[in-house]
Amino acid sequence: MQALSIYEPIQGELAEVEQNLRGLTDNSFPSLSELLKYVLDTPGKRIRPAIALLASHLHPHQGNLPVTIATAVELLHVATLIHDDTVDNSDTRRGRATIGNLWGREVAVLLGDYVLAASATLMCDANDIRVIRRFSETLMDLSSGELSELLAAYDWRQTREEYWKRIYKKTASLFSTAAECGAILNGSPEEWVQALECYGRNLGMAFQIVDDILDFEGTSEEVGKPVCNDLLQGTLTLPSIILMERHPDDNPVPALFKDRKPDENLKGILEMIHNSSIIQDSYQVAEEFAQKARHALEVLPDSLYRRALLDLLDYVVERRL
Amino acid sequence: MQALSIYEPIQGELAEVEQNLRGLTDNSFPSLSELLKYVLDTPGKRIRPAIALLASHLHPHQGNLPVTIATAVELLHVATLIHDDTVDNSDTRRGRATIGNLWGREVAVLLGDYVLAASATLMCDANDIRVIRRFSETLMDLSSGELSELLAAYDWRQTREEYWKRIYKKTASLFSTAAECGAILNGSPEEWVQALECYGRNLGMAFQIVDDILDFEGTSEEVGKPVCNDLLQGTLTLPSIILMERHPDDNPVPALFKDRKPDENLKGILEMIHNSSIIQDSYQVAEEFAQKARHALEVLPDSLYRRALLDLLDYVVERRL
Repeated sequence: MQALSIYEPIQGELAEVEQNLRGLTDNSFPSLSELLKYVLDTPGKRIRPAIALLASHLHPHQGNLPVTIATAVELLHVATLIHDDTVDNSDTRRGRATIGNLWGREVAVLLGDYVLAASATLMCDANDIRVIRRFSETLMDLSSGELSELLAAYDWRQTREEYWKRIYKKTASLFSTAAECGAILNGSPEEWVQALECYGRNLGMAFQIVDDILDFEGTSEEVGKPVCNDLLQGTLTLPSIILMERHPDDNPVPALFKDRKPDENLKGILEMIHNSSIIQDSYQVAEEFAQKARHALEVLPDSLYRRALLDLLDYVVERRL
Repeated sequence: MQALSIYEPIQGELAEVEQNLRGLTDNSFPSLSELLKYVLDTPGKRIRPAIALLASHLHPHQGNLPVTIATAVELLHVATLIHDDTVDNSDTRRGRATIGNLWGREVAVLLGDYVLAASATLMCDANDIRVIRRFSETLMDLSSGELSELLAAYDWRQTREEYWKRIYKKTASLFSTAAECGAILNGSPEEWVQALECYGRNLGMAFQIVDDILDFEGTSEEVGKPVCNDLLQGTLTLPSIILMERHPDDNPVPALFKDRKPDENLKGILEMIHNSSIIQDSYQVAEEFAQKARHALEVLPDSLYRRALLDLLDYVVERRL
């Protein structure tokens, strides 16, 4: 219900985004079209295109460019999901079989490239080099963020600062670019563009932190992926980093990463986390990022769209299972 | 020696391209930098950037944009190679271990994305939406060409027309874009831009056909990959398509694709191909594409650079083991 109120002012445009996504499947040869239909018909929250659209409404503008850019934003996100599932070797995403599972990882790699290219091609319709450049840079961030996570796997000596850098790149960069480019395209003053970039960046940080907390909480069915997926893949996130900070010499994370025997160590980790304030403190950190995002929007005049952006922050940090 | 004469007029600029490629490795975190160094230091023929540079010299121009674009062209090529090796699960390329082999396929997927994004970001320096759009469209072609090859694997009912379409997308599209964008950026008249697009496209077709012929000829050490790799992966190319045309009901290709027992059928296929005019006829087809490319250049005034482009055609169709 809360999510609905956020999307309400841009309902019509979001429907156009969906239509654009479906349109892409019609322009391909049959077997490619089938693959595209499968990935683009997947129900998603469409948070990133919503941010681009809301940001574009904060300043008066004409034309349909925001819908184009919102579509390109979602395509970039979908492309990275396809590649991430290939990298993680995931069989399902939110309870639905992945492309790699159904058609093979080879197909998933190339399909991800195709969707990426479709996003870049659509982006050219914006006719704005600054926007196109931000998208290319964002793809550099997204892939190097995922890479740094992969290359640091099973290393339990990671700091919060490294974690911030990593989640900025792998997640917050696209939120920030969505908001920033929505503002650039409607001709907003530079101060507003910067404010929206700051909003998107901090929203994205909060979003990823909450996502990482939820990995410690759900069951496979509820979150649509196995619980403690991150730890099992050797990835430290905020809750496990706090655990390491508080018990540097006496907790089962290093043993889990060394032996890779989840049964023996995972239970101990979960107990230590849930018998402490770590989850609560992690939500508090997410709330601090949300607060920065709220603060960034203060330079903007009040409107339906600004209120929706503020509501989105509440929605993101209050997400529970 | 012949190749040298082609590169001679652009030697200095090609050295700058190499320098740009190396520069990319300096701007990354250490483990990413190591990966980039490995893929970008790989010696390559750099044919695609050479085409972009030669095309850019056919019309007087100022500034260093052609070098930037040539670097972006090579990065796009390198990115697709990284992904292709992941798709084929190749352990080596030209005798050198692939990224997937050394660091894992997961790393290869993300590294390919990063190099792709670096190419797109560099491309923005051209400050020309038409050029950027051609690059995005080319990535759509490259990935959908590879996808169509993968999705049609082990289907022995493929026509030449399907083969042309596939190799245009997976190979010739980037040759064509390199030549076309070289011409666009130097402000060539539209007729020249079209002529160079046509040159690049037909050169690319000839290049891929010869590559496909060589797969029937070499040994693993000579071509740097296993001989008959294409057939073993279920891919028909011109020689095997001609074999199917001439012996639709009586050749071992369908049996190879059905049983997937190479030992029994591959020898028979190689004998039928080498005891016929198929290899020679395939070279003849490559020569016909080269002829179209030569013809396309006729609208351009004679120069050192135009002669190098013509020499490149000879070099490509005369490639033997």
